[in-house]
Formats: sequence, structure tokens, C-alpha cells
Amino acid sequence: MVSLSDIKRAASVLKGRVIRTPLIYSPTFSKIAGFEVYLKLENLQETGSFKIRGATFKIVDELDRIGKEGVVAASAGNHAQGVALAAGRAGLPSTIVMPEWASMSKQEATRGYGGKVILEGQSLSESIAKALELAKEGMAFIHPYDDPAIIAGQGSIGLEIMEELPEADVIVVPVGGGGLISGICVAAHALRPDVRIIGVQAQTCPSASKAVESGERTRVEASTSLADGITVKQIGSIPFDIIRKEVDRIVLVSEDRIAEALIMLLERKKVLAEGAGAVGAAALLGGQIEAPAGAKVVLVVSGGNIDISLLDRVIAKGLAWNGRIMRFSVKLDDEPGALARLLLIIAAARANVLQIYHKRGGADLPVRKSRVELEIETRNFAHIREIEAALSRAGYNPG
Amino acid sequence: MVSLSDIKRAASVLKGRVIRTPLIYSPTFSKIAGFEVYLKLENLQETGSFKIRGATFKIVDELDRIGKEGVVAASAGNHAQGVALAAGRAGLPSTIVMPEWASMSKQEATRGYGGKVILEGQSLSESIAKALELAKEGMAFIHPYDDPAIIAGQGSIGLEIMEELPEADVIVVPVGGGGLISGICVAAHALRPDVRIIGVQAQTCPSASKAVESGERTRVEASTSLADGITVKQIGSIPFDIIRKEVDRIVLVSEDRIAEALIMLLERKKVLAEGAGAVGAAALLGGQIEAPAGAKVVLVVSGGNIDISLLDRVIAKGLAWNGRIMRFSVKLDDEPGALARLLLIIAAARANVLQIYHKRGGADLPVRKSRVELEIETRNFAHIREIEAALSRAGYNPG
Repeated sequence: MVSLSDIKRAASVLKGRVIRTPLIYSPTFSKIAGFEVYLKLENLQETGSFKIRGATFKIVDELDRIGKEGVVAASAGNHAQGVALAAGRAGLPSTIVMPEWASMSKQEATRGYGGKVILEGQSLSESIAKALELAKEGMAFIHPYDDPAIIAGQGSIGLEIMEELPEADVIVVPVGGGGLISGICVAAHALRPDVRIIGVQAQTCPSASKAVESGERTRVEASTSLADGITVKQIGSIPFDIIRKEVDRIVLVSEDRIAEALIMLLERKKVLAEGAGAVGAAALLGGQIEAPAGAKVVLVVSGGNIDISLLDRVIAKGLAWNGRIMRFSVKLDDEPGALARLLLIIAAARANVLQIYHKRGGADLPVRKSRVELEIETRNFAHIREIEAALSRAGYNPG
Repeated sequence: MVSLSDIKRAASVLKGRVIRTPLIYSPTFSKIAGFEVYLKLENLQETGSFKIRGATFKIVDELDRIGKEGVVAASAGNHAQGVALAAGRAGLPSTIVMPEWASMSKQEATRGYGGKVILEGQSLSESIAKALELAKEGMAFIHPYDDPAIIAGQGSIGLEIMEELPEADVIVVPVGGGGLISGICVAAHALRPDVRIIGVQAQTCPSASKAVESGERTRVEASTSLADGITVKQIGSIPFDIIRKEVDRIVLVSEDRIAEALIMLLERKKVLAEGAGAVGAAALLGGQIEAPAGAKVVLVVSGGNIDISLLDRVIAKGLAWNGRIMRFSVKLDDEPGALARLLLIIAAARANVLQIYHKRGGADLPVRKSRVELEIETRNFAHIREIEAALSRAGYNPG
């Protein structure tokens, strides 16, 4: 249904139209994993994700069959931006139906690429229904994954990986609807049948995992995930046929691990991944990617479109996990100098105060006592224990 | 003093020892600038900055002259990490003197690369004095910029740029001690004498700018900057000789502009730059880089080592600047339902509440009034004005 020659044709159409993203070695992840880890940085792609590849190829390839009404798509995020930009470049109008909860920054980005945004639907399925309605009026519907042209476009990533690192042993790919991984399967296996391809999903939405297990495209329940970009309740039909034959296995990762991976990519490798883009790194941190020492493993970082305000919350959580923030509260005598004495102990331990909240006269407090809540910057967990010990020695009882 | 052949030798030593970092096109910055903008991503380099290049070449090149005591350096950040890793790989111990205020994450990173960290000195100059003392006891001192081998190592970046984009018209480079820009000057101009090289410094520390203006290596006063990596009060002697002849001009950027550039690199291009790494983008946003339409301009993003807790503060500021956060306070009647009514107005405007602080009985408040402070997520400045209007219509007086 999708062949290497389709993907080669897509790659030649995409040349000069999208960025050939870098594949870079990561010493940090290699050290953790015990094998050689490379990152394929599709977050550096235009529109911040790989979706522009499939959308561009589809639109260029079928240009003479698309009318002046242009194209329509339904998406809460990356596909929306990819279609809007690809259509605009082809001189076509685009209408993107987004669910009502779609993030403001993604709505704005889609408008910025020239897309007309319609907010409709509580769920993505409702948005898709609306888009299909519009398609009946003449617009060409661009499916996010269940389309051979889309899969061929995404497959160009597989070609680039095999060209740059022909000795790759394993490719780890996020799985939502399945377009990306199935394109990479076709490209990579046509060139090197023994490359192992591992899919990763969030535990909250194991649609491909369940489908492969049961042999059917099971529709799963899904809860919200940091990896919203791959929260697709049922994988595509064409992707499923490819995945069941060609994917080595599909692993599931927890929300905490995704957040940890996202922070590590940012702090150690200076790349911003969205949750869905970080699941490969999460699987690696969880010891779920097995490969012999010296093996070459490519993690596809599929996108970087995370809301900055969400990133902010992930960072706050990440700092606490890594022992880089200590939060505690103590009761103080409500008298001059009490807070100063406490702060001197913290200063002596060379920790840095980030926030203080000083509260007097709560219902839970004796009269003449106040409670102070502190957030301080620490080096690591050993440093936190050291500060706890110093506080105890001075008669405080941090909680 | 440093020639193209030195740099070619450095590049051949560095091959396989450091990452050949990607040079990628940026549609966003190109659109803003009106010419073609490329980013040379040295933040993706090992240790998170270009400093590993010079340090590695210096140590490998002089390996037989370095004793078993190893090497010593003084640095608050990137040079520390570069020297520690380069020395460790060469099988040598390294001692890094850091000023007492050096950030915890940079101390930890330096230790993580195998460096022995000594905290000494209120200023970097005091740390350098300590390092020179240690050098007298037999360790080899690795200067951060005033050394031909260091300059040759950093110059390898210039070679890579000219190889990948031989038609580059302008290269924009952050300037601290001057090692990076002088290496790039030598490499680029030897291959293409007409390439314009523009240096960028923070307004808070215009050492190279003043030096070029006055014809002398003036020592300047410096205040703290987001671009701490280039806060060097006097540029190096060897770099100065190269800069005065070969640099087109040196522009200065404000702190606000640096923060804006940092946020834009993160949000639009998904790359984490430190303040010093973002000054080129800041100059571009400020309209300080002039080039004709179609010209190819390379911004060197020199590093990405920003403390995550500092990043957190920059993000908070950036969201407010872009109209993505609205902060205001209103007085409410202190009665049941007052807060709920306020929040319904905000919900109707489709803004998202991030934080609420509700205060009763302050000295500035009439009895029976409370004040509520809100932080809400907004789409843009137009959205903020729309909410302000809705609040006024409902009789609130947001301040």
C-alpha cells in the first residue's frame, strides 16, 4: 500500500520544502543507556513537528485534484499547523476544525500559518465530524494518518535516518494514529530489513499496544496525558497493517517518566520536546529499550509544540523530583528575629531561598506561633537531607 | 598569530571528538528579519556550549607538555565544563576554580564531567588568581580565550559554517573574551574575505565595543546580565588584535531584548539558548542586523547552559510581555458569590485562571471589601483589552 518508491517520491517533493532535521549524538542518554543514542530532532522541523512532511506531500501530490475551496482538517495541534502552512504555500485556503479545548497557542500558531480556525466539538471525533461535513461541500479532507500519501511523507524521516546512520540497530518512534511509525517502518526495512523498530505510547492511551495484542484495532479509553499529541484512541487502518507486521514491540510509559524525559532533554540536551516527542527518551530512562553495548539507537523526537505555560508547570515538578527544590514548612515563635534565625541556617547550608510564605494566626496554629512555608533551591537530595539535619539540630521540625 | 592552517588542524583533531553541530534555517526569524536566517546550534554541542572545542584542541595538542597534575582553569560556567570533560577524556585530572556565586547546576555539571571544583573568589578575577597559583604548583593553566590554541579550536565553527553555507553573507557572533569571534573571523575570512562578521554584547558589559571604539583594551564596569556567559570586563589581547581588524561592527543589546530572544528561540524554534547564546537573535529582533533581502545571515547560538530556575523566571516574564498572561487585581464586596461572579466573566471571555490570591482585611481595604489578585492566561494583547472592557462593563475597576 505504501512502498519505498512512494517514500522516495515524497522525499524528493519535500526536498527544499521542509527542513532536513539533524540527527545528533547524545552523550548523556548514551551514558544512561549503555548503548549509543542518537536523536532525530523533528522538533526543529518547520511548524515544530514532523506533521508538515505528510501534509506537504499530500497537498503537492494532489494539487490538481484540489479545488479552489482548498483543504480542511481536524486537529488539536500539530497536524493543524502542518496543513495550514502546507496549504498556504501551495496557494490554497485551509480550514482547520479544532476542539473547543485546543490550546490558545496552538490556535494562534495555526492562524499564524494562514489557517482559518473553527472551534467545534468537545472531542476530536466531533471536530472530525464537522471537518467531514465541510469536505462534502467541496474542500479536500486531509487525514492526519490514515492515508498512504501522509504515511509516505512521514516515511521520509526513515530515509534520512538510514542515509545518515546506515548502521542504526534500533529506531524508537512515538505512536499516536500510527502514520509516523508506519512510514518509518516501510523506509527503514526496505533498506535494512533487520533494523528493529520500537513504538512508544503513553500508558494513558495504549491504542496501538492493545491493537497489536488483540489483533484488532481496539478503541481504548484515554485519560489526559502530557503526550497529548499521541492521544489517539484508535490507530489508523493502514498504519495497523504495517505496524502488526513490522514493529518489534510497543512499550508504554508513565506520565512521570515522560515529564522526567522532557526535563532531561531540555536541561541536558537543550532541546524542547513536547510530551509526545519525549516518549522515546522516557522509554529509555525506564530501561524499556534493550540493546547491546555499542548498539546504535535512534530516538525520534517527533515535535516540540508544548505550551509554554504547561512547560512551566513541568519544570516546577521536575526541579522537585531532582532534589533541586526543597519545599517545607516550620512553626516559629511569633517574635522578632525568629525568621531571621531560620534563614541563617539555610544560608549556612548554601541553599538559595526562592519563595517564602509567612502565615500568622491560622486555625491550626497556637497563638504566638506562626507558620512559615519555604521553597529553596538545593543541589540534590543529599543536600536536602543535610539541610533537614541542620534544621533538626537547631530544634526545628520541618514538615 | 592564528592562521587558517591552525584552525584546520584543530578541526581535524576535533573530528569525532566533538559534535559537528547543525546549521538550520529559521523561517520565523527570516520572516521577522526580511532576510534568510540560519542558526548554528552550538547549544547542542557536548557540555552545552562551544567551549569544549577550544579546550579539547588545547589539551590534545599539548598533551605531552602536561604533567600528571593535570590542568587547571577558572570559570563560572561553560569553560569549566569544557575543560573538565576534555581533560577527563585525555586521562588527565582537572581542577576548576569557580567563584563562590557560581550556580549550583554549573558546579554539579562540572563535577559530573570529572572536574574537581574549588569555590574561591567573589569575582572571576579572584578565581583566576587562585587558578594561577595552582598553575605554579605544576598544573597546566587553560585560559578561556587568550590563547592561540583555544582560538583555533573555536574557529572550527567558522569552517563548518563556510563548508555548509559557502554563500553566507553575514555571521553574527556573541562576544565575551573574544575567543569565539576571533576564531570565526580567521576561518571565515581566509575562505571568503567579504563575509561580514558582526559581534554582539550585552549593554551591561560593552568591553569589546568600547575597546574597538577607543583603540585600547578598556576594562569596563559590568552589571549583572542574563548573558552571564559573555560578561567579561576586558577582552583578550590576542582576540582584540583580530577583532579590531576583522569585525564589521559590534552591537549592544538590552536585557529585555535578550529575554525576548531567548523565549522566541524556545517557543518558536524549540531550542534552549542561554542568555549569551541568544544575543545574536536579540540584535536581530532589535533591527540591529542590516542585510539586503535574500542575504544569508548566520546567528551563532553559542550555548544553552541556563539554570532551569532562571529559565522559569524568564518564561514568566516572557508570557507577560507577549500578552499571554494578564495580571490584575480588583476589589470585591466581601459576600458570598462575589468571587464566583467575577470568575464567570473571565470564563465567558475564554481566558484561563492560572493563580488567584484572595485577601481580606488589608490596611488599605475598607471593612467589607476584599481584594483579589488574578493571573490569567490570555491569547494576546487584544484579548487582554477585551477582558478589561468586559470587567469595566460589569462595574469592576481592574488595576
